[in-house]
Amino acid sequence: MVMMNDPIGRIAQELARLPGIGQKSAMRLAYFIASMPEEQVRSLASALWNGRKAIRYCSICGNFSTDDVCDICQNENRHNGQICVVRDPRDVAAIERMRDFKGLYHVLHGTLSPMNGIGPDDIRIKELVSRLSDDSITEVILCTNPDIEGEATATYIARLIKPMGVTVSRIARGVPVGSDLEYADEVTLAKAMEGRREM
Amino acid sequence: MVMMNDPIGRIAQELARLPGIGQKSAMRLAYFIASMPEEQVRSLASALWNGRKAIRYCSICGNFSTDDVCDICQNENRHNGQICVVRDPRDVAAIERMRDFKGLYHVLHGTLSPMNGIGPDDIRIKELVSRLSDDSITEVILCTNPDIEGEATATYIARLIKPMGVTVSRIARGVPVGSDLEYADEVTLAKAMEGRREM
Repeated sequence: MVMMNDPIGRIAQELARLPGIGQKSAMRLAYFIASMPEEQVRSLASALWNGRKAIRYCSICGNFSTDDVCDICQNENRHNGQICVVRDPRDVAAIERMRDFKGLYHVLHGTLSPMNGIGPDDIRIKELVSRLSDDSITEVILCTNPDIEGEATATYIARLIKPMGVTVSRIARGVPVGSDLEYADEVTLAKAMEGRREM
Repeated sequence: MVMMNDPIGRIAQELARLPGIGQKSAMRLAYFIASMPEEQVRSLASALWNGRKAIRYCSICGNFSTDDVCDICQNENRHNGQICVVRDPRDVAAIERMRDFKGLYHVLHGTLSPMNGIGPDDIRIKELVSRLSDDSITEVILCTNPDIEGEATATYIARLIKPMGVTVSRIARGVPVGSDLEYADEVTLAKAMEGRREM
């Protein structure tokens, strides 16, 4: 459907590679971009390209960074005894938005998924283990997603690092705040019951 | 919410200017772009920028074009006696997809909208009038949208050009093919009745 020779078609084709942008909305966006002032398109294109060029991974935690070591790992006010392990940089952003966690992060860049051929060596588990040789780290909080792969990854890591004498915890699974019990699925409800706390 | 100093925030900020992309999806896209291979981001950015630079307006019909005169206006196989008047280039693409219309186009780049201060001199009406000095043009089909502004624009143009001795027609308004009468609004239904044809 998309013609290769016309610039609008090419723009649409490139945009359609992005998640959540189908052929139709890509075409609609491409027409919009075609009528945008050149200066604005230049600014968009340069944000994309220069932005992407500027982004690398923090050599310590694996989060996106513009330097060799990211702002969080460099920040001396962060509590360096806690490491929160997440699947990807977006999860770091989500937890940072909470403004509550003051420790450090470790980004795995994936979860174990034997079905997709992703094993322990394909995600940043080795790097986590080597960070634990630093005695100042006392707790590892496993914040992978509460789905099958996230749970499997958390379980795998817990077994691996517990013998290293570090406290290993897992974020609580339960009913979301503000939700209605009636609509909670059984597994979530069971986890919420299991994780109940005395008041 | 968006931080100016970080590349991901800048990408998100630029993307959020596009229609239909809110702050949240812009952020999600920006994270996706941050993890895309550099080569793909370069290809996206260059499609945007080089695409936009390549696009100008056909000096005859006003449609997007890469040349001074667009492919449709240049095509000798098109029937040059009919001009279909539309609001913007997207409408040309929609009608072309139908593969049924063999005439030429005229893109107004807007509709009359006194509320928004858009008068006859702000859209390409003068250019349409001057095209009509060519005697080969026998029919002008007004294909502006069937909404208040589109109707007003069609009425205005019809009054202006009818005295020039050209047939002026308006696309039919009626019930969409495949739709259910029960759900048609009254105005559409009234137009469909009014426009009925003997079988």
